Amino acid sequence: MFSLTISDHIMIAHSIRGAEFEPAQGLHGNTLVVEVEFRAPALDRLNFLVDVDLAKAELRKVLDVFDYKNLDEVTSLAGQNTTMEFLSRHLHGLLAAACRDGRLGEAARSLTAMKVLLRESPRAWASFEGPIAG
Amino acid sequence: MFSLTISDHIMIAHSIRGAEFEPAQGLHGNTLVVEVEFRAPALDRLNFLVDVDLAKAELRKVLDVFDYKNLDEVTSLAGQNTTMEFLSRHLHGLLAAACRDGRLGEAARSLTAMKVLLRESPRAWASFEGPIAG
Amino acid sequence: MFSLTISDHIMIAHSIRGAEFEPAQGLHGNTLVVEVEFRAPALDRLNFLVDVDLAKAELRKVLDVFDYKNLDEVTSLAGQNTTMEFLSRHLHGLLAAACRDGRLGEAARSLTAMKVLLRESPRAWASFEGPIAG
Amino acid sequence: MFSLTISDHIMIAHSIRGAEFEPAQGLHGNTLVVEVEFRAPALDRLNFLVDVDLAKAELRKVLDVFDYKNLDEVTSLAGQNTTMEFLSRHLHGLLAAACRDGRLGEAARSLTAMKVLLRESPRAWASFEGPIAG
Amino acid sequence: MFSLTISDHIMIAHSIRGAEFEPAQGLHGNTLVVEVEFRAPALDRLNFLVDVDLAKAELRKVLDVFDYKNLDEVTSLAGQNTTMEFLSRHLHGLLAAACRDGRLGEAARSLTAMKVLLRESPRAWASFEGPIAG
Amino acid sequence: MFSLTISDHIMIAHSIRGAEFEPAQGLHGNTLVVEVEFRAPALDRLNFLVDVDLAKAELRKVLDVFDYKNLDEVTSLAGQNTTMEFLSRHLHGLLAAACRDGRLGEAARSLTAMKVLLRESPRAWASFEGPIAG
Repeated sequence: MFSLTISDHIMIAHSIRGAEFEPAQGLHGNTLVVEVEFRAPALDRLNFLVDVDLAKAELRKVLDVFDYKNLDEVTSLAGQNTTMEFLSRHLHGLLAAACRDGRLGEAARSLTAMKVLLRESPRAWASFEGPIAG
Repeated sequence: MFSLTISDHIMIAHSIRGAEFEPAQGLHGNTLVVEVEFRAPALDRLNFLVDVDLAKAELRKVLDVFDYKNLDEVTSLAGQNTTMEFLSRHLHGLLAAACRDGRLGEAARSLTAMKVLLRESPRAWASFEGPIAG
Repeated sequence: MFSLTISDHIMIAHSIRGAEFEPAQGLHGNTLVVEVEFRAPALDRLNFLVDVDLAKAELRKVLDVFDYKNLDEVTSLAGQNTTMEFLSRHLHGLLAAACRDGRLGEAARSLTAMKVLLRESPRAWASFEGPIAG
Repeated sequence: MFSLTISDHIMIAHSIRGAEFEPAQGLHGNTLVVEVEFRAPALDRLNFLVDVDLAKAELRKVLDVFDYKNLDEVTSLAGQNTTMEFLSRHLHGLLAAACRDGRLGEAARSLTAMKVLLRESPRAWASFEGPIAG
Repeated sequence: MFSLTISDHIMIAHSIRGAEFEPAQGLHGNTLVVEVEFRAPALDRLNFLVDVDLAKAELRKVLDVFDYKNLDEVTSLAGQNTTMEFLSRHLHGLLAAACRDGRLGEAARSLTAMKVLLRESPRAWASFEGPIAG
Repeated sequence: MFSLTISDHIMIAHSIRGAEFEPAQGLHGNTLVVEVEFRAPALDRLNFLVDVDLAKAELRKVLDVFDYKNLDEVTSLAGQNTTMEFLSRHLHGLLAAACRDGRLGEAARSLTAMKVLLRESPRAWASFEGPIAG
């Protein structure tokens, strides 16, 4: 199995409902380093897994919806508790759709799985991995 | 599949019997950066995988048995060659028991697997992963 | 010249007035990794620069005022544009006072300078360094 | 499942045919940090997964063929587009053969899988994982 | 003294004349992580040291001349042995000129010094620091 | 001012007398990542600050005295409390002598200063910097 991973980051505010850890219930914020790992069992005829520049550009487009925002006020996240775990899956969904729609190029249609990992600090990170097929 | 990882570290002395690399047979030591990855296929109703603060506190309790110690003299490790590989599995066993006993909260009972990774230097690390069920 | 550095982190929300980069003017947030470097030309008779555990505890106390907060609503920062540069100097002031007051132990009274560095992402960080004398 | 990972690096020049990203088609270069993860379901009687010093030495031997070279002129890579993805699999093949031939010691014959990961920058990396059996 | 640092990277090929270490004399390559630290004794009235977005954009422009290139064929480097040490000073010169010319904004005219650091591997890096005044 | 830094690491056991933090008084251990920064105001005619390969080899020789050892039993450290701060200066002394003796090559005789930094964990490190002249 092959993988190719790209990394970027966002800077967001949010609050976390129902956290056992009380302080997190107030409005605070995070730098979230985002690592997206694409996986496929084979490479194309030029030995590429995915067009890394298209992938970086599409990741940036997806992140722009959240970057420099207060997630408590982002419409597409309304009603959600925006934990790292949830955000990993949410980004996975948006990027998997981009792969299926051909926005990452033809090679990306052969990808089988993807993992989205979010680092919130040197001491805690979360991820979601799953198939790209909808 | 979701994951959530927390990180801490310990500073231990030990010697390694039977190492091909002779110098390791003498008493020396390591800073071991400990990364514990919890895995589950679903989140709870508040989008949490595990209570991260309970997890950090329980990890610290488990590590306190070894931190600032000479492992050659720790009773629970008697007779063992304390390689990184062994210590990864040993910590995995202690933390899996904590999950099963409810010491990481109710959500932790839904965890399916765990990976314990120990970094001994920028150039070498080891891990053990396995189910949480005993 | 000797130095000893300790590291911790905070997770804060804030907005930045007058930023050329428009998006930063909205409420967003950061994980700020905080590195505090203490400096002195000599060590004490036991070869210590400062009591590292007292220093870590005092740093945590200072950071607790800001951690998990919206800085736009923290009284002691009222009227300030909370850039990384400003926050570095602000934390420097609080920690230098702690040194002068003996809250980091007697050894800390011999420290001559301190540098506070804040990492907001893998791609940007800021610092303030200056004497400890008020 | 146990793992043990070692890390080293090489500094190579190459060009990439057919890259959508035009500049990569010219001759340029990379520092490639190489991480090799060995996996096995059990440890030997001394709690080792593999002889880490033999592994490091063999990895260095394998890397010496490419280190400080222009990959466009390395005979064993002739005709290949030397993407990170391809190089990961190529190194995997060379190291798996070393395991099967006993060059990493007897313990290495019990290894079941291996992952080779190449970091080309803080923002992009690739890997190949597969069985050691030829 | 305040500092603000930004980071980017380039991927270059080159050869090194007269290196005691023979292999470096052949054509090889590097990923060079570039860290640029700007320094000034005071902040502007909005608590900024420099406009970080202008600085990032100007750094990228300066790096584009070298990124994805064989430095042995870059006209502006003709006759130079492109060691990390040399490249640090060369980039320092280009960026200092940008500051003096106002390409980093008015605030940048108050900067007093700059340090350019190049990381070629996890085990070696080099820097040049000096005043911004020409 | 130019700098060139190389990095290596050692794995040592030791105990710390008189530590306020009681557990450190028992025998424990550390992985110490060692970063040595060489400084000079000018480069040689080939644009080198120091022969990096000679420097790496000499650093390794100096570290071999301590690597995989219990520092409480190393003769040259007898009677010393082996804090990070002390060890930074001790290594500085050994490496400065190597520079003066010509063991790092002729270029190293032009070096003016050196900084030795020891990282004991992701959260604490120490350094000593001073002139190379004896």
